[in-house]
Amino acid sequence: MTNVAILGATGYAALELIKLLLRHPHARITMLTSRQEGQPHVSEVHPALAGMLDLRCEQFDAERVTKTADCVFSTLPHTASMEACAQLLDRGAKVIDFSADYRLSDPNVYAEWYGESHTDVAHLREAVYGLPEIYAEEIRSARLIANPGCYPTAAILGLAPLVAGGLIELDGIVVDAKSGISGAGRTPKLAYHFPECNESTVAYSVGKHRHTPEIDQILGEIAGTPTQVIFTPHLVPMDRGIFTTIYAWAKRQHSEAELLDLYRSYFVGSPFVRVMSRIPTTKDSAGTNFFDVTLRQVRGAVVVLCCLDNLIKGAAGAAVQNFNLMYGHAETTALL
Amino acid sequence: MTNVAILGATGYAALELIKLLLRHPHARITMLTSRQEGQPHVSEVHPALAGMLDLRCEQFDAERVTKTADCVFSTLPHTASMEACAQLLDRGAKVIDFSADYRLSDPNVYAEWYGESHTDVAHLREAVYGLPEIYAEEIRSARLIANPGCYPTAAILGLAPLVAGGLIELDGIVVDAKSGISGAGRTPKLAYHFPECNESTVAYSVGKHRHTPEIDQILGEIAGTPTQVIFTPHLVPMDRGIFTTIYAWAKRQHSEAELLDLYRSYFVGSPFVRVMSRIPTTKDSAGTNFFDVTLRQVRGAVVVLCCLDNLIKGAAGAAVQNFNLMYGHAETTALL
Amino acid sequence: MTNVAILGATGYAALELIKLLLRHPHARITMLTSRQEGQPHVSEVHPALAGMLDLRCEQFDAERVTKTADCVFSTLPHTASMEACAQLLDRGAKVIDFSADYRLSDPNVYAEWYGESHTDVAHLREAVYGLPEIYAEEIRSARLIANPGCYPTAAILGLAPLVAGGLIELDGIVVDAKSGISGAGRTPKLAYHFPECNESTVAYSVGKHRHTPEIDQILGEIAGTPTQVIFTPHLVPMDRGIFTTIYAWAKRQHSEAELLDLYRSYFVGSPFVRVMSRIPTTKDSAGTNFFDVTLRQVRGAVVVLCCLDNLIKGAAGAAVQNFNLMYGHAETTALL
Amino acid sequence: MTNVAILGATGYAALELIKLLLRHPHARITMLTSRQEGQPHVSEVHPALAGMLDLRCEQFDAERVTKTADCVFSTLPHTASMEACAQLLDRGAKVIDFSADYRLSDPNVYAEWYGESHTDVAHLREAVYGLPEIYAEEIRSARLIANPGCYPTAAILGLAPLVAGGLIELDGIVVDAKSGISGAGRTPKLAYHFPECNESTVAYSVGKHRHTPEIDQILGEIAGTPTQVIFTPHLVPMDRGIFTTIYAWAKRQHSEAELLDLYRSYFVGSPFVRVMSRIPTTKDSAGTNFFDVTLRQVRGAVVVLCCLDNLIKGAAGAAVQNFNLMYGHAETTALL
Repeated sequence: MTNVAILGATGYAALELIKLLLRHPHARITMLTSRQEGQPHVSEVHPALAGMLDLRCEQFDAERVTKTADCVFSTLPHTASMEACAQLLDRGAKVIDFSADYRLSDPNVYAEWYGESHTDVAHLREAVYGLPEIYAEEIRSARLIANPGCYPTAAILGLAPLVAGGLIELDGIVVDAKSGISGAGRTPKLAYHFPECNESTVAYSVGKHRHTPEIDQILGEIAGTPTQVIFTPHLVPMDRGIFTTIYAWAKRQHSEAELLDLYRSYFVGSPFVRVMSRIPTTKDSAGTNFFDVTLRQVRGAVVVLCCLDNLIKGAAGAAVQNFNLMYGHAETTALL
Repeated sequence: MTNVAILGATGYAALELIKLLLRHPHARITMLTSRQEGQPHVSEVHPALAGMLDLRCEQFDAERVTKTADCVFSTLPHTASMEACAQLLDRGAKVIDFSADYRLSDPNVYAEWYGESHTDVAHLREAVYGLPEIYAEEIRSARLIANPGCYPTAAILGLAPLVAGGLIELDGIVVDAKSGISGAGRTPKLAYHFPECNESTVAYSVGKHRHTPEIDQILGEIAGTPTQVIFTPHLVPMDRGIFTTIYAWAKRQHSEAELLDLYRSYFVGSPFVRVMSRIPTTKDSAGTNFFDVTLRQVRGAVVVLCCLDNLIKGAAGAAVQNFNLMYGHAETTALL
Repeated sequence: MTNVAILGATGYAALELIKLLLRHPHARITMLTSRQEGQPHVSEVHPALAGMLDLRCEQFDAERVTKTADCVFSTLPHTASMEACAQLLDRGAKVIDFSADYRLSDPNVYAEWYGESHTDVAHLREAVYGLPEIYAEEIRSARLIANPGCYPTAAILGLAPLVAGGLIELDGIVVDAKSGISGAGRTPKLAYHFPECNESTVAYSVGKHRHTPEIDQILGEIAGTPTQVIFTPHLVPMDRGIFTTIYAWAKRQHSEAELLDLYRSYFVGSPFVRVMSRIPTTKDSAGTNFFDVTLRQVRGAVVVLCCLDNLIKGAAGAAVQNFNLMYGHAETTALL
Repeated sequence: MTNVAILGATGYAALELIKLLLRHPHARITMLTSRQEGQPHVSEVHPALAGMLDLRCEQFDAERVTKTADCVFSTLPHTASMEACAQLLDRGAKVIDFSADYRLSDPNVYAEWYGESHTDVAHLREAVYGLPEIYAEEIRSARLIANPGCYPTAAILGLAPLVAGGLIELDGIVVDAKSGISGAGRTPKLAYHFPECNESTVAYSVGKHRHTPEIDQILGEIAGTPTQVIFTPHLVPMDRGIFTTIYAWAKRQHSEAELLDLYRSYFVGSPFVRVMSRIPTTKDSAGTNFFDVTLRQVRGAVVVLCCLDNLIKGAAGAAVQNFNLMYGHAETTALL
């Protein structure tokens, strides 16, 4: 049994993480932190958890956290997260960080996209990008996991077999993603006010979304050469799920069947990837840790169509998957 | 042509009002006010109005308003509204007020439910409750209209024929209302954050909603004796519309056909009331000024089932209907 | 390990049941039946189950079912269900029936509301109403469970403490229920076509819904005297969940705190009932087996406000809860 | 005053058309046809129209139609539509056809994509593609209008300035469209059953959607050379609206401001095109005849972001706009 703490327990990813960990036979939640005053009970913050977990949210204190827990999940926002994680790592905790703070290996790229200097370059060097379908070996022995962003998980898994196989041009890849609104977080803003975003679809941060360099970096690692994608996120009026449509330009002709076989081979041993011939819907992976993918060929383009639950496979589920690998449990524990 | 001003132009009711008035052959919007700084263009506040109205939102100034407009629609919140309206009335403007400030004839009832003293009792005395289906005559000669609340419009119109006919007990009337979320206004709050209220239904302000005394007062006027209803509002995950289910206890037996005939007779001459035998849906009146109603008899109860668009018949449409009556236009102008 | 079969595997309740049973450590799904031709794989019928269950849906054959499974969950429609269940019971299977066929103890009431004669009165006599919060003892030794309807579960659990305590009048109880659209089943019809029912709220089957006699019967058993409620179901545009607002007339004055204490006492030992002081939302119990309830007193009325997930606590979860009791497992197995 | 008939009055486009025409000062609806038996009243077919239009839906009879109406709007499905329209044209009516039957100038292309031979090649030759922003002159003198598809309207208007200006490569244009579900029509099917498509996003007909050749053809006419786009439609859980994201490859560098100016110039005189710098939302054009568009440049790609209401600017509104041009009315009549 591993004692775990969750930092920043008031958000949506934390809620899903708590639900998953409550089902985990080898994890026990021993501490929750939040910046809210007055130590609110977790059921006040997340009424859905009434009767399920009897803990109050405390102010963050690195020493108390590491006394109470061996593994810490941080769902703090970027910069705040690395400040906390640095202290925890120095005290010997293992850390799974949901923020962007340890995802970008180059601190200059971080500074460029996040507008702030990286303050924990020391630990950044040992961070492992927590995408088990690609980095399972490194994750097993890591003590600091950079849990991937929701959009990058879909974009990278959707493209990895094509990039690894050298089947597509690395220029001009278009990643057009459609996300449910929980991806925007839990802080009320006009753009996410129900009567504004219900019955509406919109693109945002076109060409500027901070998940872009993360997609570039991992695809570049797979390709062995710098890679840049054209990434456009959209919000669609639903709670959960991301549908990502990827357009890449085939180097040579293959049948759809051949390409699907390539995907099946690439993801052999990945229990949460479902390669399928029909087009997946976000609903079929909602509430699960599955990544569903298919592809079509259209007039010279390979069109990859893939889905995941942004809060599970795109956040909390991936974190538990990483936890399972780090602690030697079956990769699917608490996730099926 | 009447020049009109709209106070508090940033909310949802104001948006609908602007759209209706832009179609009105005898009204011209000459001024918009808001408390937002920097005189934002109306298309910045309401992007839907891009290319439709070229006005900036100004700070409220009573003298400027009355110089520019003959009739003022106030969509300011309560207490702020009577403060502004008092000045406008004193300067000779006609006023249609969307707030609760002039709806309750007894200032003590106002103080009890709104927690603040009434500061404009002088004008309160001449205010007319702007429900044309009941007070058309008074509206025609009024210079201050208290535009009804959305819930009261449905509850009162749904019950008026039964109460006027003395067919039901005045005790134990249950008004169970289900509203779309635009009724909660445009200020972002956690309760109306999309991922919180989407896919969710909830009751709120049970027994304490401020529309309760308004329903009591008008039904009491119709009945000729004090009346109290048990009113429970709910939020359902949709933008627009209220479905109100009313349970009243029949004094004597009538057939449904007889009761529907009673409704048809009562609402003869009311162009926006559609008495029907099938059960209405909120969708069929959404975007319109119609009030749709039917009823059923169940085990001694008369169950009234009625719908309206909370922002049109429950706010902006009713205001234009009142404007039409006040200025001698056909009641349906700009509303069909 | 108990081998279980599911009849009528193509519907929404069956999908949820399969998901729950796949997590159950003491149940193994060995057979699925459906009337669809060609033995479709379960992942063709329910794409969400891809990679999770490798079974084809077979045509119903009582002998094959009882050879394969010890316990049968029937999600067949009424009349079809009792035809199948009678054969299974005669062959020694235990049966948990989701239809109405074994819920109404009086076959004449069945005939009156369902318009068909009851064809299995023999087994009807031994059927136990599967509401564990009230009939746990009987369920433990039952071999035929009539799994309750979704609306009755909410109405009965919401009223049981008041009725059992003799605190309310048995006349004039109003049950106003708001359901997500999955409650209408999976057969496409215009009323449930997305562009028709999205952004719309409507009542249906007013005074005629077939769950009415079921509510009457169980409340009558609790009260010890015949009881009739005024029941109005509504559809609101969401997938899952029922919000039920109940209006009953207090016989004498109690504080809300006293009444909430009464509820807490009544449901002591019921692990899935959450009595709370705040008003529950359907979202907080969605996807769970919880029944959430609170109450308010308004002008002489007790207003009970309660929620459940129509497909879990209102169907599949209750069935697994019954299964757990029948087979001696902890009541919460696979349900938390 | 022009007498108009509507064929196929039971669908969503017909409903919107009726609402628009009821506001039109120079059109009178004199006949509705449908294949439904028993001459249902239009308010039975479309309850929203109760009290607004007193007509029954008749079986189609070309002679009766042309005796009653001068201009006929056909919302019949393809092939059925040309069969009816041919008869009407031969009898001297003007026709605005919502189907694809007269959109593709080459009958072979029609046969290839629609799987049926074209049966009215004679009239096809004189058909004018009803996109007033491009073909206003031809429309004014036309007697047969092929009203454009909803997706093509967005794709073509979004790309026209770039293609006309020769600013982009004609190869590799990606059109990724997200549509509300009313675009799928009014016939209930499992894919559009609320609990299936609510809370879900999905692509469909990837590379095979029948609007593809229509986009190709018109862009090709503008470019003066054959053009092919990669078109992927998606369904998102909302009633109305299309958000189209277009990726094209710039031939040379321009600033965003220059490109927006190009759009403003191109659409000068187009009262329903709103070129804007912010990203439009489908909500802001929902219920209107506006086409909203902006663009961004991202890593060598021009990303066009545009919206319209699929049933108004994408169908009924465009039809009225065409009607206005054909009959010499102001282009915006009944549409603002």
